[in-house]
Amino acid sequence: MNVKPIIHATASVVISYLTYQAVRLIIQQLEETNPPLAIWLRQFSTSDKIQDGDRYLQELMTVNQELAYRVMTVRQHLGEEVLDYLPELCRTGILQSNQQHQRQHFEKIMELSIPEATEDR
Amino acid sequence: MNVKPIIHATASVVISYLTYQAVRLIIQQLEETNPPLAIWLRQFSTSDKIQDGDRYLQELMTVNQELAYRVMTVRQHLGEEVLDYLPELCRTGILQSNQQHQRQHFEKIMELSIPEATEDR
Repeated sequence: MNVKPIIHATASVVISYLTYQAVRLIIQQLEETNPPLAIWLRQFSTSDKIQDGDRYLQELMTVNQELAYRVMTVRQHLGEEVLDYLPELCRTGILQSNQQHQRQHFEKIMELSIPEATEDR
Repeated sequence: MNVKPIIHATASVVISYLTYQAVRLIIQQLEETNPPLAIWLRQFSTSDKIQDGDRYLQELMTVNQELAYRVMTVRQHLGEEVLDYLPELCRTGILQSNQQHQRQHFEKIMELSIPEATEDR
């Protein structure tokens, strides 16, 4: 199994997600300092546009470069705060999720088998 | 700025993405070994369903627990292969993306300013 493309695709998903979170933070900040610009940025940042962080930034750069630079700065800052925690947190998250699904499955089996056991008496 | 919710939300996005990649790999494997099941899994795994990896697994567990266990195993394995590379790769990706957007912006400014400079002569 060649996992290299999956590693790169996952990194790309994370970067786009941090771009989205950076935009959300900036909209929150603008709501306090410049409400009309907050409305404009919210309308500009449609969910299908922001799915690809790089294309989104490219488009934003053409219409408001100051905001584009701000998104890049906040995204980089978020990266510094978030990225190092990801491996451990995801590893734990996957383990916990797997255990939870397995537990729910066993509980269901038990629920189904208990009435049968009662009937046998 | 409270980044804790963003860290957890990002981890959740990564886990869901690895679930999606695990399903893709299993569909590829099934296409060789069990084509009808590959078709079934592809039809079951609609993009809106798979956006939330945990809900997807919960649903899959109710209809085909063997496949659900397989998705969990492959996802965990993918995590081991992918997660440790993410911080560095994302950090580099963000830096490169920022530099690229800035360079494109400067090139555009230069393109716009060169004709003016020529006119001045």
